Parts: sequence; C-alpha cells; structure tokens
Amino acid sequence: MERSGIELITLADVQAASGRIRRRAVRTPLLSCPWAEGRLWLKPENLQPIGAFKIRGAVNAVRALPARRRAAGVVTHSSGNHGQALAFAARSEEVPCVVVVPEGAPKVKLDGMRRLGAEIVPVPPARRAEAAGDIALRRGMVLVPPFDDREVIAGQGTVGLEVVEDLGGADTVVVPVGGGGLASGTATAVKGLRPDVRVVGVEPELAAETAEGLGEGRLVSWSPERTGRTVADGVRVGPSELTFAHMKERLDGVVTVTEEEIVHAMGVIAREARVVAEPSGALAVAAHLAGHVRGEAVVAVVSGGTVDPVLLRRALDGE
Amino acid sequence: MERSGIELITLADVQAASGRIRRRAVRTPLLSCPWAEGRLWLKPENLQPIGAFKIRGAVNAVRALPARRRAAGVVTHSSGNHGQALAFAARSEEVPCVVVVPEGAPKVKLDGMRRLGAEIVPVPPARRAEAAGDIALRRGMVLVPPFDDREVIAGQGTVGLEVVEDLGGADTVVVPVGGGGLASGTATAVKGLRPDVRVVGVEPELAAETAEGLGEGRLVSWSPERTGRTVADGVRVGPSELTFAHMKERLDGVVTVTEEEIVHAMGVIAREARVVAEPSGALAVAAHLAGHVRGEAVVAVVSGGTVDPVLLRRALDGE
Repeated sequence: MERSGIELITLADVQAASGRIRRRAVRTPLLSCPWAEGRLWLKPENLQPIGAFKIRGAVNAVRALPARRRAAGVVTHSSGNHGQALAFAARSEEVPCVVVVPEGAPKVKLDGMRRLGAEIVPVPPARRAEAAGDIALRRGMVLVPPFDDREVIAGQGTVGLEVVEDLGGADTVVVPVGGGGLASGTATAVKGLRPDVRVVGVEPELAAETAEGLGEGRLVSWSPERTGRTVADGVRVGPSELTFAHMKERLDGVVTVTEEEIVHAMGVIAREARVVAEPSGALAVAAHLAGHVRGEAVVAVVSGGTVDPVLLRRALDGE
Repeated sequence: MERSGIELITLADVQAASGRIRRRAVRTPLLSCPWAEGRLWLKPENLQPIGAFKIRGAVNAVRALPARRRAAGVVTHSSGNHGQALAFAARSEEVPCVVVVPEGAPKVKLDGMRRLGAEIVPVPPARRAEAAGDIALRRGMVLVPPFDDREVIAGQGTVGLEVVEDLGGADTVVVPVGGGGLASGTATAVKGLRPDVRVVGVEPELAAETAEGLGEGRLVSWSPERTGRTVADGVRVGPSELTFAHMKERLDGVVTVTEEEIVHAMGVIAREARVVAEPSGALAVAAHLAGHVRGEAVVAVVSGGTVDPVLLRRALDGE
C-alpha cells in the first residue's frame, strides 16, 4: 500500500485525551436497543453539553496546549457545532475564544456561542479561513480547526475508548464521516485496543467524498454546491489529508445511505430510543437499519442532536 | 407529627439496591442545561432500556428475592412501563414473568412485554388485581406491584444515590410523583446522604392526590375519571399508604403544574436537551421552567420517554 508519509496519531494520544476531557465531557452510556434487529447499542453523543461529540476534540485541543500558549486563547472559523464546542472548552479553561463566522450565519447559533462567552467576528464567507489566521497571528491565539488537527482527532477518539470499555463484546462500531475527525479518532482507539473489531464509516450518498476517495485510493473533494444537497448538514464537508490518511489506514470501509434512510432513522431513534438525533447524527443507525453494515454486536455512534424542530417533526411523521 | 406506624425504608436499603441493579440498569449521566435559567441538570431516565426508571425497582425486587422464590417467577398487573420493566428484570434473571393486563390494552405495549419474554394474561379491567393474586397463589409466583413495595421503592431510590454521587453541589432535586415510588426512594437516598438538599415532588394539577394529601395530612384518593384528564398518563395513579408515609416524612413539598406547562416542557426538553420525555417525564422540568421550584443548583429527574409521536410533534410545535 502506498504510504502518505503523514504521521498518524496513536492509541496513546487518545488515552492522554481521555484524561483531559474527564469532568468536561459527559461520559455517555451505551444504550441497548431491544427494538432493533440483531444486537445494537447506541453511543448518544447528542447528550454532550453542546449537543455533539465535538466537545471532546475541542476540550482536548485546548487542554493539551502549554499553559502560556493556552492563556492567549483560541480561535476558529465555524458556524456550527465546532464553534460552540471550542467556546465551551475555552470557557471551562477560562481562556478567551474568538469564532469567525460567515456574515448572515443563523442568529440562534451565534447566540449559543455568545452565551458560552465567545467573541464573534462576522466576515464575508470567502474570507473566513484567512480572517481566523489573521486573528491567530495578530493576537497570539492558537487556531483550532474542526477536524484537521491531531489533538482534535485524539479527543474525538475517546468515543472509541469508551465503547470498548463498556462493551467488550462489540464486533462492529459504526461512525458518521464528514471531515473525518470522529472516524479517524474512533478507529485509532478501537483498532489500537481491539484490532479484531470492525470500524465502519457512514456518509450520505450525496456527500460521499471519503467513500469515493477510498475507492480511488486518493483524497477527492466535492464542491459545496454538490454536498450541500444532503439534509445531513453536519457532514457536508470532506476529509483533509490528515483525516483521510487515518481513515485509509484504519477504517474497514465506508458505506453510504440515502436521504430517505437518514430521515427514517431520525424518526426511529426518537420514537424507539427516545433521543433526538440530527441528520448527521442518525447516519450510523440509518446504515444499520438499511442493512448496510453486518455484525453480531453493533455500536452506532449518534454523533449529535442539533436539529431543526420542523425536520424532527417530519421524521416523526414517517411510519 | 402524627406517625403512621409504617416502617420506612432506609438509605442502606437503597445502597443494597444499587449493587443489585449494576449492569442491568443504565448508569445515567447528569446533563447540564446551559439553555436554562439558573443552573439546571437533567437525570435522563428515559435512556433506560424500557424507557423509564421503573427498571430500577423491578430489577431490585426480582434480584432481592431468595433464589428459590425467584426461580418460581414473578407476576404483576400493569398495562404500562412497570409491566415491561418486570419482564425485562425477569428475563435478565432468567425466571418466568406473567403480566396481567386489562382486555383491550394497546397492542404495542403488549408486544413490548412479549418481546421481553413475558406471558400476557388479559382479563376484564376490574379483575386485574384479583387475577394477579390468583396467579401468584396458584403458580407460587411472587407479586411485584408497581410502587407499593419496599424493594421497588429502594430500587427507584438509586436515582437519588447517583444524583448525589455525580453532583455534590446540588441543592434541590425535583421528581415526578404518581404512585410515589420514585419520589419515596429518591428522597430516602438524598436525605440519607445530604439532609440539607431539598427534594421536591411534582404532580399535574389534574392528578394532585399527593399534594392534596400532604396538605390535609392524610392519604387522599381521586377517582380514575378525575385523574384520567391529565395528559401525563404515567402519573394518573395516586400513592399507597406506604409511599405516602415516605413522602410525608421525607419530601420538602409537592408542587403542581398545568397541562400547558407539561407539554411546553416536553418541547423544550426535545429541542434543547435533545432527549424525548413523555408527559410524566417532563413534570420536573415543567416545574422548574414555570418557576415553581427554587434552587441554585437544581436536578430535574426526567423519569421516562414513552410517548405517542403525535403528542411529541405537538410539543415540538410550541414556540
């Protein structure tokens, strides 16, 4: 196999992250699903304070910084869960946080970040990355990207550590794939401890950059116009070189699900498991329900639960 | 104060239950609520395998039996969560379980119990208690009632133990009150460990037997026609002498909420905390949101999540 030359994170990196996130992130339980075919458990990351697993990576990235660098604060560009996660992490460590957002971003999301003490800097969408870089340089802040970062990946990997701790008998772990931080970290932890357990990623058919990339053996990128068609707004982004290298090495494959399968799964999760999943958060369960993953004891990671009530109502209508 | 002469359960009883339910019931985390006024945490018992705290009491009652009595199996009469909880408990101990149900009970609930291996015995509604007693006598099975039982109360009390373990700084714990098993057990655990922490019960205005009874200093009972008007179907039943004695001695009071406050709280819990609460499960949050409970650090027990999707959709419409 062609090697990328990128150094991957290790199980030890994830174990170090585990100590750092303790008492900040919720230690989510595994929920058994007597209603499902076969033996299925959910890992409900929607129960995290900001509603998504992202808090694990953000807290780890902030706490892993040397004290002097951390004191200067952190900056990112995100209009979604990562911005809130970083704001939460910065507040818990009592350091400043700046979130660069595209002008016109939904007020509700900005309010969430402000409530967590973040400074919001709106810029034209095309200038986001540049503006965040400028702020990092000018104010001596550390840039913490949403997934293209070793400590962020290590933090997300604590999901995998906890799954193995709680269910020694699991044989398959299924994770949503967007930027690939969660999948990279989880696979690192699971394979590090239990090389026999399969770790399978899930993407929407409409945003299947990683599935296509693994098929071609190289990173591929789809346009925002193209991935923007999926209802799963949390995974409209594709992998970076760093996360792609992890997934290529450590995932057992990536399967895809249709839009209908995603919304159907949201309804099943709410009705049967009594938790609220956003579309991206329902990907792993969707893959299981649609028969796209096999396993005698399957764990599906429900990655987040920030969903428009209108869409949730529609999901509840199904069936 | 007038004493009833009824011997109450003790903290030690709850601690013994805690050992018995381990690895059967989910160790639910506390969820912080940055979206709420003041400092609020949820204890999401809707995450239990059958969707409600009831599993704690049922598992404890079954496991507390001497092995020979347990082997003969258990019986109850319930068309609701307790029947499913007892079926779950019996299956996990590999003993038989009979659930006497009123003729015409919803098929979906019976299917749930059957899936858990219970034998279902439909009888005319008026004959339920008698029929369960007959079966207990004839087949040597142990009758496990839904709340009027010391081991069931002790099992429910493990909710209180876990709250105190996880949040030493809590000053107020709020619990729904129906038959009173959860409130009795939780108050026993919390007051036993932390007499300074307030434990407050919540009832719907339309099914406020315990609130009225505590006001009058004696057990009062409302007709099923009267309590049947509340949307909170899980708490349409009133306390027994045993649970009333516990609540009189150990609760700091019982407040009531309106039907509108209950449905509003269900919507808030789904949208903001991303978990699904049934109406009874939303009572404690409803009381907090409506300003009926005071406290600097409040824990609201979300007791269950088995809800008609139509009602959940309606709750999501609010706001």
